[in-house]
Amino acid sequence: MEEFIYYRKAQYHETDQMGFIHHSNYIKWMEEARVAFMDQIGMGYSEVEKAGVVSPVTAVNVEYKRPVRFSEEVGIQVSVLSYSGVRLELGYKFFLIPGNELCTTATSKHCFLMDGKIVSLKKQLLELDQILSSFQVPN
Amino acid sequence: MEEFIYYRKAQYHETDQMGFIHHSNYIKWMEEARVAFMDQIGMGYSEVEKAGVVSPVTAVNVEYKRPVRFSEEVGIQVSVLSYSGVRLELGYKFFLIPGNELCTTATSKHCFLMDGKIVSLKKQLLELDQILSSFQVPN
Amino acid sequence: MEEFIYYRKAQYHETDQMGFIHHSNYIKWMEEARVAFMDQIGMGYSEVEKAGVVSPVTAVNVEYKRPVRFSEEVGIQVSVLSYSGVRLELGYKFFLIPGNELCTTATSKHCFLMDGKIVSLKKQLLELDQILSSFQVPN
Amino acid sequence: MEEFIYYRKAQYHETDQMGFIHHSNYIKWMEEARVAFMDQIGMGYSEVEKAGVVSPVTAVNVEYKRPVRFSEEVGIQVSVLSYSGVRLELGYKFFLIPGNELCTTATSKHCFLMDGKIVSLKKQLLELDQILSSFQVPN
Repeated sequence: MEEFIYYRKAQYHETDQMGFIHHSNYIKWMEEARVAFMDQIGMGYSEVEKAGVVSPVTAVNVEYKRPVRFSEEVGIQVSVLSYSGVRLELGYKFFLIPGNELCTTATSKHCFLMDGKIVSLKKQLLELDQILSSFQVPN
Repeated sequence: MEEFIYYRKAQYHETDQMGFIHHSNYIKWMEEARVAFMDQIGMGYSEVEKAGVVSPVTAVNVEYKRPVRFSEEVGIQVSVLSYSGVRLELGYKFFLIPGNELCTTATSKHCFLMDGKIVSLKKQLLELDQILSSFQVPN
Repeated sequence: MEEFIYYRKAQYHETDQMGFIHHSNYIKWMEEARVAFMDQIGMGYSEVEKAGVVSPVTAVNVEYKRPVRFSEEVGIQVSVLSYSGVRLELGYKFFLIPGNELCTTATSKHCFLMDGKIVSLKKQLLELDQILSSFQVPN
Repeated sequence: MEEFIYYRKAQYHETDQMGFIHHSNYIKWMEEARVAFMDQIGMGYSEVEKAGVVSPVTAVNVEYKRPVRFSEEVGIQVSVLSYSGVRLELGYKFFLIPGNELCTTATSKHCFLMDGKIVSLKKQLLELDQILSSFQVPN
């Protein structure tokens, strides 16, 4: 797949009194970008949910390099960092639009649950397993 | 019952770039005050939920009189404005602590649902019906 | 002007445990639609701010008619309900896309401040005054 | 100082449709705990701000071990992991109350800014520098 980028405009209600987007919102933007990425690769939330699988977040890591202001637009590039069948790690790069200045890097880790138990996608959702396995993980 | 007041400190993540608490947060504070009020009158969320009843918000109305700043404390007085068995309207007065300056007034309207259908509490949850009916509605 | 509609997809992080978009988010969506509307009529936030004018929300009113679910798209139609030079009231109709089912109606009231004092746009920001005055207020 | 613990009840508006507190809220809870911790050690937000110093978040890291549900209470233990005069790293342990089951661990990194430039607290805010330096950093 070509690189996937999710575009998002910073909203007024996301600012704080320092005059920047509050840092908690980046976690929400990562989720929005992830949902759009999963749609794009053909395994949107509703398809996965129909298979009885949910994919909770087990960890997030965010490094804030440059603050974002109200009404600025950000492009968020999503990539698969690692995938084992049981665990998935995604990477995120936030760029200011226009100019492509890098403002934030982040990662999120996920497992897969059926009926509350950790499962392997190889056994439970082969289609998603094959899609995620196809990503060339960067060295 | 004596008057019920819920106390809440304004948080940094609730501010916006105008330097005040963003107006959307008052809807969340009303919910927090309402949940605490229901606990106080003996019909907390989990009791009502066990009876299979949910009580969605059908309308909110908020009048902002004076902005609230980070780290200020607010007392939110909750009262029953009207109750018909099928519909409930609550009133909220937000006061700054200390000093009791009125900063916001608000109302919320609610119905009661079982299995997605509107029900009368008189039939489905007599205990809550009797509690809500006991409030002296102000003229 | 033709009618103005702002489009917005409901996000996962906006859901609550009832399975719907939490009702507090509609206040944020109204703001997003209002910001886009002001941009569209040629008086975007940064233009107004450069003139030293801010326009806080003095009241909101929301009637929830049908809940919205994660990943549903909503169109929000914004209109000028009344404008006096000193006070502005906007109306909002939320429609589900596709199908245009009305899910929510709302209003917001605003005043205009310079240096913390209420001002008339006729005196302080004639350009915006003329734009807002040009709207045919519906009977 | 004795260990510092901030107590917080999980709110309904913080839940998502999976039935748990949405993972973005932990970033807000960390901030609330951090603000309370700074108050406790005698360098509350307004004192620091009066000195012209702000302390933005440069990184966060969260590991979610067990989800939190609406109305559960969480205790958040805050500790100083490292402090260099220029950079500060705080650690957070989230425990369920009662029972003290560990549900989340997290860290946040901070720098200190005056007029938008990174400064050393040793030079700009000696009082806070001495307080932070006094913490016995765990090995």
